[in-house]
Amino acid sequence: MEIPSVFFERAVGQMSSLPGIGRKTAMRLVLHMLRRPRADVEALASSLSELVANVRYCRVCHNICDGEECEICRSASRDHSVVCVVESVEDVMAIEATSSFSGVYHVLGGIISPIDGIGPSDLEIDSLVERVEAGGINEVIFALSPTMEGDTTCFYIFRKLAHTSVKVTTIARGVAQNEALHYTDEVTLGRSIVDRRPFGN
Amino acid sequence: MEIPSVFFERAVGQMSSLPGIGRKTAMRLVLHMLRRPRADVEALASSLSELVANVRYCRVCHNICDGEECEICRSASRDHSVVCVVESVEDVMAIEATSSFSGVYHVLGGIISPIDGIGPSDLEIDSLVERVEAGGINEVIFALSPTMEGDTTCFYIFRKLAHTSVKVTTIARGVAQNEALHYTDEVTLGRSIVDRRPFGN
Repeated sequence: MEIPSVFFERAVGQMSSLPGIGRKTAMRLVLHMLRRPRADVEALASSLSELVANVRYCRVCHNICDGEECEICRSASRDHSVVCVVESVEDVMAIEATSSFSGVYHVLGGIISPIDGIGPSDLEIDSLVERVEAGGINEVIFALSPTMEGDTTCFYIFRKLAHTSVKVTTIARGVAQNEALHYTDEVTLGRSIVDRRPFGN
Repeated sequence: MEIPSVFFERAVGQMSSLPGIGRKTAMRLVLHMLRRPRADVEALASSLSELVANVRYCRVCHNICDGEECEICRSASRDHSVVCVVESVEDVMAIEATSSFSGVYHVLGGIISPIDGIGPSDLEIDSLVERVEAGGINEVIFALSPTMEGDTTCFYIFRKLAHTSVKVTTIARGVAQNEALHYTDEVTLGRSIVDRRPFGN
C-alpha cells in the first residue's frame, strides 16, 4: 500500500504503538480525527502533552496527583493508620470504586518479578518501610494480585516489616460473587473453606 | 471514584472520545503512557497536532496527501483515463492493497444519506463531473458500498454524467472468496448467477 502522507503515516505509527491498538485500528482512529474539527484533535494532543508535563506522584503514597500530595493522603476523613499496599494506580482506582476502604494507600509501582528484571529496589518498598517506621500506622493490608509474583512481594515486604509492631493483613481470597462453585479452581475453593467465617456477619 | 488528577482526567476524557475506546480502555492507555518515557508521549501528541496542521487533500481526487496533488494523481505509471469513485480514503487504501487497480481515484467524502443529512452538495460530486467534462477520462468505476445509500449515490452521479460520453461501470458483486454458497444472502447469490462469466477467464 502506498503511503498517502508522511504525517498520516507518522500518526498511525504512533497510535499503533499503544497497547491493544493494531495498525488497522490506528488507521481508523486517525481517519476519524481527520474528519473532526481541527480544534478537537489539538485538544486531544495537548491533553496528552500536558498530562506528561504536569502529572506528579504523591510523595507519600506514590499515587498520581497534581500537587505534592494526593487527595487521599491530604483528606482528614480517611483513616491514616491503615495503609493498603497495591501494585499500581489502577488498583487504587479499583478499590476506591468499591467505596469499601476508608484508609490510605501505598503504590509500589509494580511487583517483584525476576523474569521481568524487577527487583525490590525498583519498587517503593523502602519508602513503605520508612512510612511504617515513622509511626502512626497500625495496619498494613496487602492487596496484591494472587500470583506467584504477588505472593513473593508480600513475603518480602512482610519480612522487611518484621521488626515493627505493625499488624499485617491480606485481602480475602475466596469464591467470587455470582461465580458457580464448580467452576472455581481448587486452590481458591480450598482456601475459601479454610477461611470460612460465621454466617450472617 | 475520586479523580486523582485533572490532567489525568482530561487525558482520559479526550482518549475516550475516540470511536471504540471506552472509559476503561482510555484509562488503561493513559496509564500506559505515564509508564513510558515522556518523550514517547510527546512524540505521539505532536504527531497528532502535526497531522491536522499539515495534512492536505489532493486537489484532483481529494485523497489525503502532503502537497497539492497526491502520489497517485502525480504518478506517470497510473492510467489517468480510468477513475474509480470511492466513498472515503479508507476505500482508496483498501483498493490499493489489492494491487488490482492501476487507474486513479475520486474520493467523494461520503455518500448521499438523507437520514444523516448528507446531500449531493456535501460531497465531491460536482468536482467529479468537472473532471469528466474536462476530458481525458474514458471510464468511471463506481466502487461504493452495496447499500441503499451507495446505490442512490451511484444513480445520482450516473444521471449527472449522462450528458458525457464516459463509460460508467460498477465493481462486481458476487459470492466472496472462501464464502460457503449456502450462507450467501439471496440477493448476492441471485446477482452472481445473472452476472455469470465464461469459465477459465
